Amino acid sequence: MRNFVEMKEKVTIIKVGGKIVEEENSLDLLLKEFSALPGRKVLVHGGGRTATAIATNMGIETKMVEGRRITDVDMLRVVTMVYGGLVNKNVVAKLNACGLKALGLTGADIDVIRSHKRPVRDVDYGFVGDVDHVDGEVLAWLINRNIVPVMAPLTHDGCGQILNTNADTIAGETAKALVPYFDVTLIFCFEKKGVLKNPDDDDSVIAHITPTDYDRLKAEGAIQGGMIPKLDNSFAALQTGVKRVIITRVGEIGKNTGTLIEE
Amino acid sequence: MRNFVEMKEKVTIIKVGGKIVEEENSLDLLLKEFSALPGRKVLVHGGGRTATAIATNMGIETKMVEGRRITDVDMLRVVTMVYGGLVNKNVVAKLNACGLKALGLTGADIDVIRSHKRPVRDVDYGFVGDVDHVDGEVLAWLINRNIVPVMAPLTHDGCGQILNTNADTIAGETAKALVPYFDVTLIFCFEKKGVLKNPDDDDSVIAHITPTDYDRLKAEGAIQGGMIPKLDNSFAALQTGVKRVIITRVGEIGKNTGTLIEE
Repeated sequence: MRNFVEMKEKVTIIKVGGKIVEEENSLDLLLKEFSALPGRKVLVHGGGRTATAIATNMGIETKMVEGRRITDVDMLRVVTMVYGGLVNKNVVAKLNACGLKALGLTGADIDVIRSHKRPVRDVDYGFVGDVDHVDGEVLAWLINRNIVPVMAPLTHDGCGQILNTNADTIAGETAKALVPYFDVTLIFCFEKKGVLKNPDDDDSVIAHITPTDYDRLKAEGAIQGGMIPKLDNSFAALQTGVKRVIITRVGEIGKNTGTLIEE
Repeated sequence: MRNFVEMKEKVTIIKVGGKIVEEENSLDLLLKEFSALPGRKVLVHGGGRTATAIATNMGIETKMVEGRRITDVDMLRVVTMVYGGLVNKNVVAKLNACGLKALGLTGADIDVIRSHKRPVRDVDYGFVGDVDHVDGEVLAWLINRNIVPVMAPLTHDGCGQILNTNADTIAGETAKALVPYFDVTLIFCFEKKGVLKNPDDDDSVIAHITPTDYDRLKAEGAIQGGMIPKLDNSFAALQTGVKRVIITRVGEIGKNTGTLIEE
């Protein structure tokens, strides 16, 4: 009998792609759902489409390799402006209008996320940072004062250099860093209702996946392509102590829908 | 005899113009001086030159009336990107490389500075905000944890709208809001060594001005033009309980130079 089970408060980390925060209708729906979600929470956002549009407007070419942005010095200026400024501050202002106390953060702010520039192997990604450390303690301190961190996909190297960092990674690493302080739920929002058994059938959502299920589903070929890295990330998060990962879409946040991933 | 004089901790609020944070040499000097300054501190920055350059790059025309930017919807996007993203995050990353815990803030973040859109009278300034309220309590809470707020000249109206706001005003209003919590010094950095008795002689700095001196100097015509609003702002700050205002330049922050304005 465990009489002294530690009861941690719950925190929900929601990662939304650029598409959601960049379109007015989906942003409004997200803000409504996110504000209504009970308890402590963190929002992690992208912004790639706006970055590409602004870059084009400025005559800067967007180069991608396998869906990942090459961030040269000009593109770094663009993503710093767009992710840290335009997208982040608009989301923050709108969340605060919903009664939250949102605080926009890049990894550079209060040294929240330290990273190192990705070494050049086959591809030179430029000013892209791979995360070394997330300061869970300072985030917990903010969250416990009812502040809602709104995190842009930018980090820094501790030597004054801003680096562009994948928003999924920021969400996963932040979730992991909050494990000592909270009971952590991580929600990835994307276009589909959840993990689909049949990619052509939007209603074939797999409601629940355990690690054993996942191995079987992969062996059967039921899970393929772009879904595999998302699920690999999700199971990696579980291994670091995150309690549950949910893959869902805006419009269904906080409902018992989507795919629940847990041990 | 007052035996119970309240001893408040000191805080220094430094306002630097865009020119200083936008040029590498002056930024490096500022970072060095600002980091070395003892005690609690806040940095307020501009960024107008970069905003104008990025706007031009994007084919957006910069319109000014008497030195003040007209902020239409396109220009608002530019200043949100440049002030809140590009300039702010670079300064934050560089200050953190100097060992500080800098936190970039716009007025929208944690609802720090609430403003209202300036009513149209002779001129329609567009999305420009006049400050209603600065949350000194939340700023003091951050500052007392050794966090250094780095404030961009943007505010919000509480209804989701970001507004462009003069950086001198942000510095003055922030200084005033911190008076209940700290012994406040406000430093305005600009190009000159201080308030000059003779505008053509850079070494004719007036070391000390009291309100009585100021009335006399104005009557004598010794203080003219652009210096008058700066000094009016400074004396207004003193009236709200700010202990001292210093007008100086980068390279001399924290030294006993420049013009000291106090009762």
